[in-house]
Amino acid sequence: MRIMILGGDGYLGWPTAMHFAARGDDVTVIDNYLRRQIALQTDSEALIRTPNLQERADLFGASTNHRIEVVIGDCCDYDLMRRVVRDAQPEAIIHYAEQPSAPYSMRDYRSAALTLDNNLKATFNAAWAVIEEAPDAHIVKLGTMGEYGTPSIDIEEGWIEIEHKGRKDTFLYPRKAGSLYHTTKVLDTDLLYFYVRTYGLQVTDLMQGPVYGLRTPESDLDERLQPNFHYDDIFGTVVNRFLTQAVAGIPLTVYGRGGQTRGYLNLLDTLQCVDLAVRHPPGAGQLRILNQFTETFSVNDLAEKVRRVGNGMGLSVEIQTVDNPRAEAEEHYYNPAHSGLKDLGLQPHYLTDDVMADLLETVMRYKDQIQPRKVLPRVRWKR
Amino acid sequence: MRIMILGGDGYLGWPTAMHFAARGDDVTVIDNYLRRQIALQTDSEALIRTPNLQERADLFGASTNHRIEVVIGDCCDYDLMRRVVRDAQPEAIIHYAEQPSAPYSMRDYRSAALTLDNNLKATFNAAWAVIEEAPDAHIVKLGTMGEYGTPSIDIEEGWIEIEHKGRKDTFLYPRKAGSLYHTTKVLDTDLLYFYVRTYGLQVTDLMQGPVYGLRTPESDLDERLQPNFHYDDIFGTVVNRFLTQAVAGIPLTVYGRGGQTRGYLNLLDTLQCVDLAVRHPPGAGQLRILNQFTETFSVNDLAEKVRRVGNGMGLSVEIQTVDNPRAEAEEHYYNPAHSGLKDLGLQPHYLTDDVMADLLETVMRYKDQIQPRKVLPRVRWKR
Repeated sequence: MRIMILGGDGYLGWPTAMHFAARGDDVTVIDNYLRRQIALQTDSEALIRTPNLQERADLFGASTNHRIEVVIGDCCDYDLMRRVVRDAQPEAIIHYAEQPSAPYSMRDYRSAALTLDNNLKATFNAAWAVIEEAPDAHIVKLGTMGEYGTPSIDIEEGWIEIEHKGRKDTFLYPRKAGSLYHTTKVLDTDLLYFYVRTYGLQVTDLMQGPVYGLRTPESDLDERLQPNFHYDDIFGTVVNRFLTQAVAGIPLTVYGRGGQTRGYLNLLDTLQCVDLAVRHPPGAGQLRILNQFTETFSVNDLAEKVRRVGNGMGLSVEIQTVDNPRAEAEEHYYNPAHSGLKDLGLQPHYLTDDVMADLLETVMRYKDQIQPRKVLPRVRWKR
Repeated sequence: MRIMILGGDGYLGWPTAMHFAARGDDVTVIDNYLRRQIALQTDSEALIRTPNLQERADLFGASTNHRIEVVIGDCCDYDLMRRVVRDAQPEAIIHYAEQPSAPYSMRDYRSAALTLDNNLKATFNAAWAVIEEAPDAHIVKLGTMGEYGTPSIDIEEGWIEIEHKGRKDTFLYPRKAGSLYHTTKVLDTDLLYFYVRTYGLQVTDLMQGPVYGLRTPESDLDERLQPNFHYDDIFGTVVNRFLTQAVAGIPLTVYGRGGQTRGYLNLLDTLQCVDLAVRHPPGAGQLRILNQFTETFSVNDLAEKVRRVGNGMGLSVEIQTVDNPRAEAEEHYYNPAHSGLKDLGLQPHYLTDDVMADLLETVMRYKDQIQPRKVLPRVRWKR
């Protein structure tokens, strides 16, 4: 298939590009290095320095004989987007091209404005490039489970039937996100839904939980093909921060009471899910929403698991509660559906002790490069 | 009170400015003439040419001795917004500063992009100027009943309690708008709700239906203080188009089956509603949503009323069905709540035959200036 990946330099974008290229798909990636630029500006650079996107594509090509076409440019530039879509005629566009950090989006006016503008415009331009140049293309958009927030009712997969005063209708499941970044994903969904209804676009919106994992079959070919590993408070997930803290001998920083529960998944399962979505398009005029995670943990569960496995490996892992920099429920009901991707064929990889040990071992190889100042929160939600 | 009006040159903005100034409030208006510029570019200029905003403020000042402070500038320019809010320290900010045309938003990529960018950025900047410079200010945002679309269940005022699988929670009422313009208002609400939750803003979101009316007590002081009257397919409402067609002897153009039902209100009631909202702020950390209309009509009802009253005045009014340029339900359930503003004290002015006759008489004074080519649809939703 002809696949285009927006945000191909990212933690998910690059492994996704290799995944499809290795299967013989015709892959074009676009990226403007926004994440690298923000990481540089906020002293949040990844633990493992990765070559640039063209260099990674060249290394991958040399290892596998599979070519990844690289375009360096901004998805917010519509002339570029339109031209690239016209030339490549993608059957699927996988859209990761968003400012992905919740803390960055809560930092100040400027970073909030950049997040809103970049994320909405990239999504809007992707929709319009499809409308004008490739109307049959399937947009596979990475949303987030964070769009739903933590409601007191069960979270369904994107849609809910409401019975009200004796009548019924079906609506997008209501969303109430916990950061401006997550809110931009709510807006993206609203925007895509409008163009699905009006111009018959076909869209899959993948409501993904936090992803962990440092390797894929393709990244194992060459150390320089590894996914980005951010462990800082801006781009690092809680899993990455805990792994790094465990290795560096810093107590794991649990924000507040630690009952915050989310759906997690392995990077290998992100690749499976995106592949399943791409190979099973929903059809014209359809907005398909799938909840993309394999198991739920609270922050306390996760800290406990890192401590147990880490201590078993000879690390000395402690857990410390810190004042929560975010505005979020620290104890809450959480029961999200996630059967859609399993129905399509997803075979989950769970966060077993072996997987946790492998993650810790990988980080231990880079222990000398850990900068402890990066693992404590620098951005507070409340002003 | 210290009142700031964003979009003070508009059909609602200018009468609102005069209304508050006439009551002794301290009024600052901002406008960048975006609507005038789009009207010029799309051959959609108003029937009655109005002086520019500074000239109108000067005329009003000369008639009443009440001063309206005019700032010509773009609410998308945050440096300007922040400075104006810092200097004026408004207690209420009435936010009309949006590209208000649904057809314009559906015209092409460029007009859609302008609508999305302008409307979101103006709202975002208003929120941030309040956060940073006037945290106690009450934002009174003009939303639209069009955010809700035409669901099969009763439309509540902004919120709905959902009972699902034995549990309950309260959410924003689900929204499904019929144009990109209306969708930007959905996004505005989502964005403001996020900042209400996170930073404790106080916001009233007025979900307004189409407004008709060509005079207010203040505009009657001088013909040059009249509200803008757009009758074209870009900025004109269905009421204005029908009035103009009736006067010009063009059959009233009903789009499709004509069962499209909406909640309408008189311009006098918009002023009442906004005044009531401003004088009764909801309190910090509250997003209050009020449905702002006084009565519902279908397009067929409205056409029939214009025909009946027009023919009684000696006009020769015919009704013609035209192919619907929009994507919308032409027959649908519609039962929206609207008790909140009545509870605050709204005394409705209904669209009686006398009111209709007064509207027709006003338009008849400008009959020679009607350009018939402007009253037929130029923008189609379906591509």
